[in-house]
Amino acid sequence: MTESFDAVDVIRTKRDRGELSDGQIDWVIDAYTRGAVADEQMSSLAMAILLNGMNRREIARWTAAMIASGERMNFAKLSRPTADKHSTGGVGDKITLPLAPLVAACGVAVPQLSGRGLGHTGGTLDKLESIPGWRAALSNDEMMQQLEDVGAVICAAGDGLAPADKKLYALRDVTGTVEAIPLIASSIMSKKIAEGTGALVLDVKVGTGAFMKDLADARELASTMVALGTDAGVRTVALLTDMSTPLGLTAGNALEVRESVEVLAGGGPSDVIELTVALAVEMLAAAGVTDIDPSEKLRDGSAMDAWRQMISAQGGDPDAPLPVAPETHVVTASLSGTLTKLDALAIGVAAWRLGAGRARKEDPVSPVAGIELHAKPGDTITAGQPLLTLHADDPTRFARALEALTDAVETNDTQYEPTPLIIDRITA
Amino acid sequence: MTESFDAVDVIRTKRDRGELSDGQIDWVIDAYTRGAVADEQMSSLAMAILLNGMNRREIARWTAAMIASGERMNFAKLSRPTADKHSTGGVGDKITLPLAPLVAACGVAVPQLSGRGLGHTGGTLDKLESIPGWRAALSNDEMMQQLEDVGAVICAAGDGLAPADKKLYALRDVTGTVEAIPLIASSIMSKKIAEGTGALVLDVKVGTGAFMKDLADARELASTMVALGTDAGVRTVALLTDMSTPLGLTAGNALEVRESVEVLAGGGPSDVIELTVALAVEMLAAAGVTDIDPSEKLRDGSAMDAWRQMISAQGGDPDAPLPVAPETHVVTASLSGTLTKLDALAIGVAAWRLGAGRARKEDPVSPVAGIELHAKPGDTITAGQPLLTLHADDPTRFARALEALTDAVETNDTQYEPTPLIIDRITA
Repeated sequence: MTESFDAVDVIRTKRDRGELSDGQIDWVIDAYTRGAVADEQMSSLAMAILLNGMNRREIARWTAAMIASGERMNFAKLSRPTADKHSTGGVGDKITLPLAPLVAACGVAVPQLSGRGLGHTGGTLDKLESIPGWRAALSNDEMMQQLEDVGAVICAAGDGLAPADKKLYALRDVTGTVEAIPLIASSIMSKKIAEGTGALVLDVKVGTGAFMKDLADARELASTMVALGTDAGVRTVALLTDMSTPLGLTAGNALEVRESVEVLAGGGPSDVIELTVALAVEMLAAAGVTDIDPSEKLRDGSAMDAWRQMISAQGGDPDAPLPVAPETHVVTASLSGTLTKLDALAIGVAAWRLGAGRARKEDPVSPVAGIELHAKPGDTITAGQPLLTLHADDPTRFARALEALTDAVETNDTQYEPTPLIIDRITA
Repeated sequence: MTESFDAVDVIRTKRDRGELSDGQIDWVIDAYTRGAVADEQMSSLAMAILLNGMNRREIARWTAAMIASGERMNFAKLSRPTADKHSTGGVGDKITLPLAPLVAACGVAVPQLSGRGLGHTGGTLDKLESIPGWRAALSNDEMMQQLEDVGAVICAAGDGLAPADKKLYALRDVTGTVEAIPLIASSIMSKKIAEGTGALVLDVKVGTGAFMKDLADARELASTMVALGTDAGVRTVALLTDMSTPLGLTAGNALEVRESVEVLAGGGPSDVIELTVALAVEMLAAAGVTDIDPSEKLRDGSAMDAWRQMISAQGGDPDAPLPVAPETHVVTASLSGTLTKLDALAIGVAAWRLGAGRARKEDPVSPVAGIELHAKPGDTITAGQPLLTLHADDPTRFARALEALTDAVETNDTQYEPTPLIIDRITA
């Protein structure tokens, strides 16, 4: 049992720009999980943390306390090393889908506990659920068996991992306290460390479609998380990647599965291939595997084999046709020139309004809704040519989606200066 | 009905150092009172207000919204003008007791809605309840009748005035968000404006025994409240007064009633007389009465007559003996010299531990517990002479009270420089 403190004293300490002691942090997380600290007390503390910050020691202790609130998994009994990836979320970010089987095909097991989408960024489980029969819920034993047999699993995180984080995340969502780097970093890392992966690669996105709009904030988040992972004995590295434009040529659940399968088949858009391979190289290196070229595993079909096994193992039919939207609407270019902007946030919000995402946790998502892109920044376009195809279950969805797209596109005669996809690499 | 907003948007506005719009403020106060904004959302907003502030327009609107959450009283039908006083709370601050009948004796009605004590400062209702038979609860009609007949009433505020403030104050108390000047000012002024007084004098205390330890904070609170009252059509003035040492020679419920009666009888400690008369002069002037010297009404017995009527009207017996503590403990001086410090906070905490105050709202208080002071700063004292007499129901209370007094007293050979009791006067 931890020492006892007073909730108001803990709040006042942070409010008055003090440092929370290890004992205060352990107590407040434990007491909040037990219900002895009330929601209104935790939200006031979260706002004080958002505005006054936490130092590295406080963040590390906060993360450790959230891990201690639940169970820890252990993959030591597996016959191969483990590596996981976490993305901070973006538009068209289907990378987990080709990446997990690709890394498995290279001999490293990938225990990917994923979430569902909320707001304009999609969720990996929502995407996979567009595959007929596929199920997200696995027991710990099923997960362990699939990791041994197939080498890759993408499933829903159980309730046992970091329950303090689950409760705190739901609270932050309704109290304007999501955007605190110490709380974001500890939320992500508590789950990843509790999950028991040996190595972790973080894809920290920056740009209009990302949670972090600003490079300095993204860099701070990345270095905070790398330090947390490293200190907890997880080999951790982060890539800072661009999210000013969507990844690939699709945003939406079944649409993104289709594109992921194209990449696994050796095709697909160049940016999706580039990021998938770059993250695979990092995951393999962090797991101690440096003699395998993952590009080769895309070419020789072994990544596709791992995909098919991974989907089948969770009840999905990899050969079943993906569902298709009954309604589409084509947006054409109004000007000729070079496409200089295709805004990730605008595309994300439009796809969300078409039905690909949810506004509240309990909302359903449409498997077929979303957007296909027919051009990307840097492409030369001609007035009248198709730019986007919107997909929906219901044609009444198009009007509000089109509203979100008002300023999504810019065309220009000037030279286009491409943004690099991979901006930086952060290590301990 | 007010326009509808999103609670998280309102919180984000203040979190990101923006100004809340009139519509946002009206909505969030109304929605919180109705329960449509949750406690955890309001506490996160309160912390953002505490750390990022509100400007004068925001504070005025916030106050107006809290007034609009409940009923407003109206004293226009009374045959005399009204004036009220509010003290931010101190140790030994029994001034309301002689002041209300004194001002009534000068022809101005005093509708004093008071509270109970919490923590180390005493509550006016707790003090009066040490008088056998006296009751704090009056209906609005009884209050109005007593104001007309006697000219002074001190009673509990009904539930109808500013219910938003009642709910918000209870929330702030448990979420570390009490110490926000915009919220303190709007809390006090919403009740005083809703109460319907024509004139208001604020006694803003500064020093160790006060809520505001710092003169600059006290000045900001005073000028914020004076502006709020003035803008709402209440003639408002504030005195900044010293609370580094207790007022008078008693702290405790029946002990303070006894001292108040001494002042009404033309005696009593000089600081209590000085502040009572100064506040009476301000209340009379704010109510338009400038030709009466309140000191005369203490001397000629008319203030005492008003006191006796006021106590009798609420069921109290002004001639009944006040209860006396069964247990006392005398603290003697350990050094000879000039008494240079008698710390208000230490005396307040000691009186509280003796039983004069409560730690939680639902706790009872002892009518007899408290402290008598036998010397005040500036007095010459001799080692071994009595300095304090502690009063309690139970001798086991003395040990913890004495602990609080460890650093309460300083004696010195140097010249003593007295602090003025009335530090400043703040007008619109």
